[in-house]
Amino acid sequence: MTAKLIKGTEIREQILEEIAEEVKQIKEKHNKVPGLVTILVGENPASVSYVTLKIKTADRLGYKEIQDNQPEDISEADLLALIDKYNKDDEIHGILVQLPLPKHINEKKILNAIDPDKDVDGFHPVNVGRLMIGGSEVKYAPCTPAGIQEMIVRGGVETSGAEVVVVGRSNIVGKPIAMMMCQKGEGANSTVTIVHTRTKDLAAHCKRADILIVAAGVPGLVKPEWIKPGACVIDVGVNRVGEKVSEKTGKTIAILRGDVDFDAAKEIAGSITPVPGGVGPMTITMLMKNTLNSLKYQLGLK
Amino acid sequence: MTAKLIKGTEIREQILEEIAEEVKQIKEKHNKVPGLVTILVGENPASVSYVTLKIKTADRLGYKEIQDNQPEDISEADLLALIDKYNKDDEIHGILVQLPLPKHINEKKILNAIDPDKDVDGFHPVNVGRLMIGGSEVKYAPCTPAGIQEMIVRGGVETSGAEVVVVGRSNIVGKPIAMMMCQKGEGANSTVTIVHTRTKDLAAHCKRADILIVAAGVPGLVKPEWIKPGACVIDVGVNRVGEKVSEKTGKTIAILRGDVDFDAAKEIAGSITPVPGGVGPMTITMLMKNTLNSLKYQLGLK
Repeated sequence: MTAKLIKGTEIREQILEEIAEEVKQIKEKHNKVPGLVTILVGENPASVSYVTLKIKTADRLGYKEIQDNQPEDISEADLLALIDKYNKDDEIHGILVQLPLPKHINEKKILNAIDPDKDVDGFHPVNVGRLMIGGSEVKYAPCTPAGIQEMIVRGGVETSGAEVVVVGRSNIVGKPIAMMMCQKGEGANSTVTIVHTRTKDLAAHCKRADILIVAAGVPGLVKPEWIKPGACVIDVGVNRVGEKVSEKTGKTIAILRGDVDFDAAKEIAGSITPVPGGVGPMTITMLMKNTLNSLKYQLGLK
Repeated sequence: MTAKLIKGTEIREQILEEIAEEVKQIKEKHNKVPGLVTILVGENPASVSYVTLKIKTADRLGYKEIQDNQPEDISEADLLALIDKYNKDDEIHGILVQLPLPKHINEKKILNAIDPDKDVDGFHPVNVGRLMIGGSEVKYAPCTPAGIQEMIVRGGVETSGAEVVVVGRSNIVGKPIAMMMCQKGEGANSTVTIVHTRTKDLAAHCKRADILIVAAGVPGLVKPEWIKPGACVIDVGVNRVGEKVSEKTGKTIAILRGDVDFDAAKEIAGSITPVPGGVGPMTITMLMKNTLNSLKYQLGLK
């Protein structure tokens, strides 16, 4: 093992401590806490477990957390009215609608109804636009790319002038992290290449990367010989490749594998994120940070 | 000379003819024409001449064109009220505010007041976001990048899987064209690299490019030896490097030079845009196309 491990679980704890401290100070000075509402329609088990994790994290940080469960058969109009209610609620700084929604509801219409200033997921076109424009225009970076950038910076990796190669062009990870890394400013200023399924020589691009960000959703796609010695490798893939019985709990759990062949890659990379425990834990962390920032915008502290 | 010239002046004529034909058909069927208003504050000579060219083009196409000149000392509130008036006017499909504005007016505030559905310049954060999200979400691509993509496609250059290198990371050209070329779909699907002032080896990146798009604003930045033989070279730079007396009119005019050393580059490239007469004429052309599209959205034709 030559690579330094960039552990999302550790960086999460650092950031959550920073947030908790800031929340405490703002509460003392302004008597306000960040307010986050999570709207869950129906009882999809994966959604329930994800939402539960959000609530637990928000509670731990002293946020006001509203868990708004709605029945599977809620009408689109009623859901829009609910969002409108929270848009107008001064004590709510972040509104999340857990996806997927039932088929009778237009997801895009719902997400676009969220006030962009409370869109802490950062997926509203206004926030996507602000992100691409960059600089002081940015309000909420989407959570996974924001987490990736934090890991790179806190991992001590130089980004200015670095060759960044992003594998994957999704709206959730690939395109936003590419835009973020090529902007002017701290933790960015990189030369960025976006590669994808139509790219002719994936290996050659990966080999050039000082920072390789892989968000393809293909287990083991990136081979160890594609990694430049000493590079920083961020593996965003969380692929279920089987099941096993947990030694701790005795329950059946998923076997997760990243987009990078970790065992071999860690002998070549300078730093690398594990799967699980790498990028995964950063998403909810950055969601909490965006929600805190929303309160700070409201109070004129940011 | 080995390179095929991709002439913006010629492609402009093709596109304007297509637009004129479509305008004629829509007028016959729906009794409506695209309406474009250009708001000019003060009398900046460069702005006046640019606005005049827009009007001339719109007139030629049979658009309803309103040239709304306002005094240099108009208040921000009055300008906002004017925009609001045009936002509500069903016969106006595109609203342009000619920049720069006088210093007492907040440009960003003014531009963000334009209804995104009439923002035919494509600079409103909502439209920037739609562009980055891609696919059917896109409404108005910003005019210069849209013109560049048209030139590449109409120049017969294959984009799918092509290595595109974009020099420059501006909000007007570099970032949007990079996003456009990496999207799924026709005229895109390219592997895209964005290079800029912090990039360590500019030459090496340019040498890899099947399609090299240069928007740096530095005359002659790209040397002929940086060009891959047979590549498509799009030179967005329009740099005033001196003055000369026009042979045609006897007037003093600017000597314009691109970001690419054209005379040498044309011996190596497979296709290349000249300066002037390359990308320049495409901007107003695509503005006209966006305005037509706005009418088509209104009529449910797109």
